[in-house]
Amino acid sequence: MGVRSLASSILLHFLLLLLLYEFGVVRAAQCSTKEQPLVRNLNELPQSNYGREGLSHMTIAGALSHGMKEVEVWLQTIAPGSKTPIHRHSCEEVFVVLKGRGTLFLASSSNKCPGKPQLFPISSNTTFSIPVNDPHQVVNTDGNEDLQMLVVISRPPVKVFIYDDWFMPHIAARLKYPYYWDAECFDSPKDEL
Amino acid sequence: MGVRSLASSILLHFLLLLLLYEFGVVRAAQCSTKEQPLVRNLNELPQSNYGREGLSHMTIAGALSHGMKEVEVWLQTIAPGSKTPIHRHSCEEVFVVLKGRGTLFLASSSNKCPGKPQLFPISSNTTFSIPVNDPHQVVNTDGNEDLQMLVVISRPPVKVFIYDDWFMPHIAARLKYPYYWDAECFDSPKDEL
Repeated sequence: MGVRSLASSILLHFLLLLLLYEFGVVRAAQCSTKEQPLVRNLNELPQSNYGREGLSHMTIAGALSHGMKEVEVWLQTIAPGSKTPIHRHSCEEVFVVLKGRGTLFLASSSNKCPGKPQLFPISSNTTFSIPVNDPHQVVNTDGNEDLQMLVVISRPPVKVFIYDDWFMPHIAARLKYPYYWDAECFDSPKDEL
Repeated sequence: MGVRSLASSILLHFLLLLLLYEFGVVRAAQCSTKEQPLVRNLNELPQSNYGREGLSHMTIAGALSHGMKEVEVWLQTIAPGSKTPIHRHSCEEVFVVLKGRGTLFLASSSNKCPGKPQLFPISSNTTFSIPVNDPHQVVNTDGNEDLQMLVVISRPPVKVFIYDDWFMPHIAARLKYPYYWDAECFDSPKDEL
């Protein structure tokens, strides 16, 4: 190995280490309740699809990222034609629709499976709450505009049970925990523990 | 009493009864969790200053008005120069500032009295959470623009302790319960009990 290629190799290793270090620092800062400023700018908070096409999620105030214990607030944007999975969770959930239009599909938790859901049109400037444990799905039915919502949940972090369809028995729904956007901070050491 | 004045008197009584009935019906509908549609339009929800000059409050999803048990969501607008009282509550609280600018005054619950508060500038597109039981006050410091915020609390309905100033001992703070906007539905029979 010549001097030149050795130098290149060292430089490459150094850059890689720097990248890993930077990633670790960013991740630690995002997941550390101590390193969060009290007043945060929404433009500077992490926003991602967390591997879910057609979704953009931002945790405005979260259990794992900001030390919340009783409530969590999200900003979610669903692209035209996209939708959440059919799912349920054992917590309260309030939506405030900021822009766009879509449909809420809502079924009951009292039978063996959700069954045919009720349909509710939703649009900018409307609000709705999902009864605890009721299976539901939010769909952006608009062809052009994003559907953007503020979402509030209790009992964070959320434990989500996902259905393949409306006729899957409740007991067959699969638990997804931690949920997509919680996974990043799930294993981080907690400041307060 | 002439026939004419008797007729006027009957008409007046009738109108008064109609007014009281209408008021009762409206109040019952606003305070009945059963009579609320699942999807509600923010433009049709009651909004008032509830006797507090410079404030406009809307309960988007509430314990007494919509049957929430774990979270409550408000839309609050503070007029230029106006402010909330200095107060504390034993619940989590998250603010999302939608428009305007102001200052958050925040003190600690760990000494005998709040003491000199810390000041945090807040503005459109920022978010902040108030630590449980910490005395705080939100002031619209702008001369022209309203300060509008979405507010999320846990453990509804809120039990507020009000301070006259930052040097009043915590134990002397006065409990205001039900809080102004909760008073209207506080005595209504609950659908679910």
